[in-house]
Amino acid sequence: FTRGTKVGRRASSSLCKDGGARGVVRAPRSALLRLLLARSAGFGSCPATKPKMLNVHLVPHTHDDVGWLKTVDQYYYGGRNDIQHAGVQYILDSVVAALQKDPARRFIYVETAFFYRWWKQQNPSTRRVVTQLVEQGRLEFINGGWCMSDEATTHYSAVIDQMTLGLRFLNDTFGECGRPRVAWHIDPFGHAREHASLFAQMGFDGFFFGRLDYQDKARRMKAREMEMVWRASQSLKPPAADLFTGVLPNGYNPPPGFCWDQSCSDAPVQDDPDLDDYNVDMLVATFLNIASAQAQVYKTNHIVMTMGSDFQYENANLWYKNMDKLIRYVNAQQANGSVVNVLYSTPSCYLQELHLANLTWPLKTDDFFPYADDAHDFWTGYFTSRPALKRYERLSNSLLQTCNQLEVLGGAKSRSGPFGEGHSDTMKRAMAVAQHHDAVSGTERQHVAYDYAKRLATGWAHCQVLVRNSLAVLSGSDVPRVFCENLNISVCPLTEGSKKFSMNVYNPLARVVTWSVRLPVNGDLRPCHGPSEWTDQPGNTAEHPAHPKLLLVRFLVDLLACARTHTHTHTHTHTHTHTHRHSVLASSTDHSGSQPVYFVCVVEGSSFIAKCPLCGRYNASGGDAESRQASGAYIFRPNSSTPISINQNPNISTLQNSVVQEVRQQFSPWVSQVVRLYNGSRELELEWTVGPVPVADGLGKEVITRLDSNISSAGYFYTDSNGREVMERRKDYRPTWDLKQTEPIAGNYYPINSRAFIKDGRNQMTVVTDRSQGVSSIYNGSLEIMLHRRLLHDDVRGVEEPLSEPGEFADGLVVRGRLLVMLTPPETAADMHRPLAQGMVLQPMLSFQEGAFPEGSSRLSQFSGLQAALPPAVHLLTVSQWSNDSVLLRLEHQYESSESKTYSLPVTVNLQKLFSTLEIVGVSEMSLGANQWKEDMKRLQWKPSTGDDMKPVGGGLGDPTPWEITLQPMEIRTFLLRVQRR
Amino acid sequence: FTRGTKVGRRASSSLCKDGGARGVVRAPRSALLRLLLARSAGFGSCPATKPKMLNVHLVPHTHDDVGWLKTVDQYYYGGRNDIQHAGVQYILDSVVAALQKDPARRFIYVETAFFYRWWKQQNPSTRRVVTQLVEQGRLEFINGGWCMSDEATTHYSAVIDQMTLGLRFLNDTFGECGRPRVAWHIDPFGHAREHASLFAQMGFDGFFFGRLDYQDKARRMKAREMEMVWRASQSLKPPAADLFTGVLPNGYNPPPGFCWDQSCSDAPVQDDPDLDDYNVDMLVATFLNIASAQAQVYKTNHIVMTMGSDFQYENANLWYKNMDKLIRYVNAQQANGSVVNVLYSTPSCYLQELHLANLTWPLKTDDFFPYADDAHDFWTGYFTSRPALKRYERLSNSLLQTCNQLEVLGGAKSRSGPFGEGHSDTMKRAMAVAQHHDAVSGTERQHVAYDYAKRLATGWAHCQVLVRNSLAVLSGSDVPRVFCENLNISVCPLTEGSKKFSMNVYNPLARVVTWSVRLPVNGDLRPCHGPSEWTDQPGNTAEHPAHPKLLLVRFLVDLLACARTHTHTHTHTHTHTHTHRHSVLASSTDHSGSQPVYFVCVVEGSSFIAKCPLCGRYNASGGDAESRQASGAYIFRPNSSTPISINQNPNISTLQNSVVQEVRQQFSPWVSQVVRLYNGSRELELEWTVGPVPVADGLGKEVITRLDSNISSAGYFYTDSNGREVMERRKDYRPTWDLKQTEPIAGNYYPINSRAFIKDGRNQMTVVTDRSQGVSSIYNGSLEIMLHRRLLHDDVRGVEEPLSEPGEFADGLVVRGRLLVMLTPPETAADMHRPLAQGMVLQPMLSFQEGAFPEGSSRLSQFSGLQAALPPAVHLLTVSQWSNDSVLLRLEHQYESSESKTYSLPVTVNLQKLFSTLEIVGVSEMSLGANQWKEDMKRLQWKPSTGDDMKPVGGGLGDPTPWEITLQPMEIRTFLLRVQRR
Repeated sequence: FTRGTKVGRRASSSLCKDGGARGVVRAPRSALLRLLLARSAGFGSCPATKPKMLNVHLVPHTHDDVGWLKTVDQYYYGGRNDIQHAGVQYILDSVVAALQKDPARRFIYVETAFFYRWWKQQNPSTRRVVTQLVEQGRLEFINGGWCMSDEATTHYSAVIDQMTLGLRFLNDTFGECGRPRVAWHIDPFGHAREHASLFAQMGFDGFFFGRLDYQDKARRMKAREMEMVWRASQSLKPPAADLFTGVLPNGYNPPPGFCWDQSCSDAPVQDDPDLDDYNVDMLVATFLNIASAQAQVYKTNHIVMTMGSDFQYENANLWYKNMDKLIRYVNAQQANGSVVNVLYSTPSCYLQELHLANLTWPLKTDDFFPYADDAHDFWTGYFTSRPALKRYERLSNSLLQTCNQLEVLGGAKSRSGPFGEGHSDTMKRAMAVAQHHDAVSGTERQHVAYDYAKRLATGWAHCQVLVRNSLAVLSGSDVPRVFCENLNISVCPLTEGSKKFSMNVYNPLARVVTWSVRLPVNGDLRPCHGPSEWTDQPGNTAEHPAHPKLLLVRFLVDLLACARTHTHTHTHTHTHTHTHRHSVLASSTDHSGSQPVYFVCVVEGSSFIAKCPLCGRYNASGGDAESRQASGAYIFRPNSSTPISINQNPNISTLQNSVVQEVRQQFSPWVSQVVRLYNGSRELELEWTVGPVPVADGLGKEVITRLDSNISSAGYFYTDSNGREVMERRKDYRPTWDLKQTEPIAGNYYPINSRAFIKDGRNQMTVVTDRSQGVSSIYNGSLEIMLHRRLLHDDVRGVEEPLSEPGEFADGLVVRGRLLVMLTPPETAADMHRPLAQGMVLQPMLSFQEGAFPEGSSRLSQFSGLQAALPPAVHLLTVSQWSNDSVLLRLEHQYESSESKTYSLPVTVNLQKLFSTLEIVGVSEMSLGANQWKEDMKRLQWKPSTGDDMKPVGGGLGDPTPWEITLQPMEIRTFLLRVQRR
Repeated sequence: FTRGTKVGRRASSSLCKDGGARGVVRAPRSALLRLLLARSAGFGSCPATKPKMLNVHLVPHTHDDVGWLKTVDQYYYGGRNDIQHAGVQYILDSVVAALQKDPARRFIYVETAFFYRWWKQQNPSTRRVVTQLVEQGRLEFINGGWCMSDEATTHYSAVIDQMTLGLRFLNDTFGECGRPRVAWHIDPFGHAREHASLFAQMGFDGFFFGRLDYQDKARRMKAREMEMVWRASQSLKPPAADLFTGVLPNGYNPPPGFCWDQSCSDAPVQDDPDLDDYNVDMLVATFLNIASAQAQVYKTNHIVMTMGSDFQYENANLWYKNMDKLIRYVNAQQANGSVVNVLYSTPSCYLQELHLANLTWPLKTDDFFPYADDAHDFWTGYFTSRPALKRYERLSNSLLQTCNQLEVLGGAKSRSGPFGEGHSDTMKRAMAVAQHHDAVSGTERQHVAYDYAKRLATGWAHCQVLVRNSLAVLSGSDVPRVFCENLNISVCPLTEGSKKFSMNVYNPLARVVTWSVRLPVNGDLRPCHGPSEWTDQPGNTAEHPAHPKLLLVRFLVDLLACARTHTHTHTHTHTHTHTHRHSVLASSTDHSGSQPVYFVCVVEGSSFIAKCPLCGRYNASGGDAESRQASGAYIFRPNSSTPISINQNPNISTLQNSVVQEVRQQFSPWVSQVVRLYNGSRELELEWTVGPVPVADGLGKEVITRLDSNISSAGYFYTDSNGREVMERRKDYRPTWDLKQTEPIAGNYYPINSRAFIKDGRNQMTVVTDRSQGVSSIYNGSLEIMLHRRLLHDDVRGVEEPLSEPGEFADGLVVRGRLLVMLTPPETAADMHRPLAQGMVLQPMLSFQEGAFPEGSSRLSQFSGLQAALPPAVHLLTVSQWSNDSVLLRLEHQYESSESKTYSLPVTVNLQKLFSTLEIVGVSEMSLGANQWKEDMKRLQWKPSTGDDMKPVGGGLGDPTPWEITLQPMEIRTFLLRVQRR
């Protein structure tokens, strides 16, 4: 096969105004020509500015939450306007009409989830108009993901997917002219470094946001450091993850007094001198003052003003009519000596002017967490808000990746097969919507949270058909398969009611993993084939009062990479249970280091190294004399800095068998925890169950689990950024400004997506989580993780509903989850937590069928989609059908450059030897967002004030051969493969 | 001169789609052709309907109050959207854009005050688009006055003027295609018969409104009498004042669930089956049910739905996009057997269908007052609300008529003369705006009431320049003239401070009147020339503490018709005062009848015929167990049906001299009254002063004056309709339905604009007022008039502000006014009250100058614009400059057909002998609104179910010669005169 054969993009003969080109096959061009074209791309249509004046770039925009107070569909249509007035269909109608009236007008659109809905309903004539507006740069897509993702609670895998979904729609629809140049996260509540890294790798030229810590902002304004170069990776070679980043002057709102949306009440430009309230002179003077003040905190003679806000421009005429007048009257003052020049612009055009200024910019290497907008207003509660939704989103990601892989492996029959029509589109869109910064963040209204969950469930239902079809193809058996989605609470009607059933396991990871499965069975069963170890134990009769005889069966199964494995079970008559009480019930020991470290749960006794995790809680503040701020969906604010122990002496029961040791801690009727250590494992599993959180005392509660150790962490702790690179945190400290700490607990919380750790020179305690959570280290040697929250007050950030999730039966939601805790030397910690964390993210998919697996089908009882497991450093991030004959593939080096002696090394993969059933006949490398050939990705280069002068690193340099690709630590490479079934 | 020479309309060569023609001179046409064209006029562009189906006419409309919670300019621009979201500029922008998208769409626009503001700001290209939309019937003007006038508190003179102003703008701008066919008073709170009469005379084909008594509506729905022929005059020969009148089904709102404005929260049509909340089937079913139910209460297979409401269509796309879908999906059901056909339409097109149905319609001869929307919710408070504004509006009308007359009489120099540029445009517009149903009605917010007053003051300031110029022309003297606008509280800096001054008096009535003038002077003055009688009396030191020596001088001056008279005064040294106490202090005697009747104020003594008027009050309800309804700006609801006497024994002081007898009654610190009888007059003057109304007891108060007599009125009383014809009222009774009376006081109040009376076979007590007020007759022989109101609760009709007017210094507004009371036999009452009332409406305008009038100018000391006074039955309603060489003239027969033996007769006026300084060289009769030649006025004819078959009465039939025109009782004839200065 030949490298560089482009595949899969829509043909188009139209040329973009900016000189970019679209098309499947292009004529060779000189590097210089390509560079010139690339440099002018998207900027050719920018408005003229005046070099000797202060140029004010008005950026008309709308911020359209993909769900928040209303569901995404309610927002699209403008339904339930009694909740919030917002209707995106009308916004797009209205903006398109307004743009046609004057070629000077500009608009940006951000959320492809909405644009996609709208585009579907437009007739060809409107589509032509819109295409022309896009080609002329009058309507510009910015950011362009399906949504504007949350940065604290999202996993990079899902973020890349949602960006890819949105960018692909734009690319398919508009080609190069529709490619967003600028990342635009104006609303998320804090900013993750990994997001910046991903944006850089997606080819964005710059990034703008609105929210940062108020102390940080004050310092930056003073120092004129509102705009900077963000070096967003410690591993990737600059400038691969460098991203020019700008803080917008006024959040994402217009300057005070200049909001002309229908939702605002600022005075319009009243310019008829015959009418009362003529206000042109006053407005012009005010505007000039604002512009002048703003210019004081930015570096160039260009400033930007965001003219819009939440769901604005439903009636674009209001905005444009008044901005037209503003521009006319302000610029008319130039004749009287004013040096202010106002113009319609876009973030890209503003960015171009900054680039042309050829300045150096401060370098940023940390991130923007946590976000506080005032002294007692730390947005650190949403790191944990709605823990069940956060888990369901993560589980759904695992299911989607499995669905994607099985679609590729099963071929066309997986989409249309014995079980009907299946597809992954609904699930992709549901997952993309769930990444929104009021979705997985937990900051939406309750009915909207239900809607997100419903979408995921519907998505999974469509995927299930695909998965059943694919498994039928791969196994050669059309026997109906059942999925049990409630195994976390030991519910599975098929296994509970069956005398003999079979289980299929599909492992979406590209390497062998060990996994434990707990199945409820009604009677005495034993496995016939497959599992290496098993045992049984009494069911929890409190959970299953109707099934007092219910038993739990646990399997340990070795799973092949990208493979399905099959086992089955039938009734047996032998039961035995074990209960023990020991002073030392579970210990995790690492003998690989020179000094053994112990993690010990002590129930009785005095000597210990790391205490058994205890659950505690903060009582939520409802506002106090110091500040009226209450704890809420966004904000965490305990009413005291000392956590309250749920119960220092929980009820304990224990169990030990050949597979597992367990300590069951019942702290209270609403808090319990099972501490498990599997035979052969070095990580401790903490399965926590919290809820319904009682609030009869009138106090909201935020429940934590705390792991104390004798590690000398000295205030330092470490958290992952969107599940990838690790950030160093330090109590009561910020790397880039002199922190005045005003909330000793909430002000020290940080988000984790997959892991956190503390360490000293010798020991490291790492926690791997099953969902995003808030974490801190308040005490030396201690890590605390917030598990669940139930609150009685709204925190006045717009959601206008206390975060008090209803449960299914009882008053308040019960949530269960798992933490994996490991004790290692610091040098080898990553070798353990990297694969463990990926195993938590992409977990095996189980399906069940009645009876035994068909006789004589042993050939099909195991199948692997890969020819071999990938090297341990390599994670198979994406395998997804792109078109009938092409597949999107992402391979990721999952180690940072210096975290593992063993794995932090370049690693090479041979693409030809990847799949067992597919032959790769063409490969093209793409940007991370898959909307640009990697070779075309020429980003604007920015000089950090540190003085290093970066040159772009060419894509794929250093690969041994075209089909052997080398991954550097933390590198993700994206390929479009043309494939044929072998 | 030649009759029929058209003058003054703008030339246009374009032909209206409806076949009407515009232009100054037209070719003669056959009567038949004209009839055909007229019958199809305005209807040619109507949408097709389906004869065998129920046709649902959707009428997209906006209701734009010309001031209410915001000022008219704030509403136009969309300023102060914090008070109410409303911006008419955007409505018109938006509707024009939406209409262009689909030729099926229709819109009506009503309030020319707004359209005029908007049109001024449009560029030629938009104007062309709009003109085309109008010509194609897609944008249709309805009603077309400057505002939608109030019907209870307006005077016909000002209503005709405001309609003329609006209709003229439409005619000048759009010609025949812009002529409204339908009167549209969807919001006013009750409907006056005189309004219907005026609309008929203006050429409207029909009239629709929204509000009527809930009992009336219920009966009409049951009887299918929602649509009727309203015979609106007892004097004019049918069908001159017959008006087809329809009650709209749902006020002026859309049916429940179908409001798609941005201000509504009804679900949009959600027709994408891929999205949640698909609702097309449900919406179609609901709509069909509503249409079917509505068809049950109307007579034909056409029904109308008003798709709009207050300030809606700011974003017309929301409405039209959803209505487009509704029409599509509802009509699609016709394929499944549905017989409902929905279409975009207009009131005119709906009216055309009703006319084509060729049915007979119930006949209505009374009016629609009072309006109640529930048992305890009588909208009878606003008859009196804001009495000071009501008076200022009436006074301003007098000034405007004077200004108009002096513009005509003074010629071009009055507009540009020694005192600068003057004009009446501002005053015309201010008066037109003040007619709005939340303006003079008193139902606007306080700041808006101030705005109306400010506009009138500004209007008057521009008129003052014109008046000064005109008086300079007419008098030959450029001496500066001063106007004293506070003479009602005896304030006039010039007369107070001057040792010698002159006074000019201009009488805008076309006949000689007697008038009294009270001037404050500082010292002892006596008149040098002019007044036939004078006296002086002590000033009220309470009112003028700084001027304890202030004296009041009173003149009685005979004024010529349309004339200015001059007098001057200088210091003299003689003062004398009189105070007397009599048991009978004032009596009005009419000896013309066979039985003398007396009106007697008895302070001491026992025998009386009519009691001295006493002031009382109702305490306002703030809501009670029976109903939460409180008294407010709109609603009158006393907390008891028994009025509370302010003071049965007021402090009395008296005065008697050669000019006047006075009784001064001080009822309390905040209520006083002066009862005056001028020498030679037969009417008693009651000058009342009320305020600040105390509310420290927590109760709002509504102050009345009550006149008790021994007339056997038996529950009957009489009130004028907009200052013209008189309506019979009867306590606890409605002529057209069986009233269930639920508010014994408020439910018996009616509006008066100029007079009310009670009578029996022998005696009549008539009260003439200086402003609009509420009146009732609760007891036999008694008339009570509400003078002032101060309330502490909002009455929940939207104004959201209690009606509690602030005063200048004290807490609460002090208001002063006058009533004229006369006792006559019933047969001669009109002979007295007709001229007296006109004298109250058009009162002499005074101006003052320092020093004596110039020597040797005796020729100029008197001037009359008329060659002679008009006959007593003829009122000079309008003399107003129309263009450089044309004048609009309205002559009115001011008597009803049977109210005066002497004057209720046809009367002829010779137009050639009208003006003293102008020669009439051409005359064309016009419709009352002056937007149509009288000969072109061919209204749709409707058959009342009484069976009489009316034929149109030709304009001007029966005139002896073309320049001698005959007026029938209550007839108003409108002429456009081409004039030359003699």
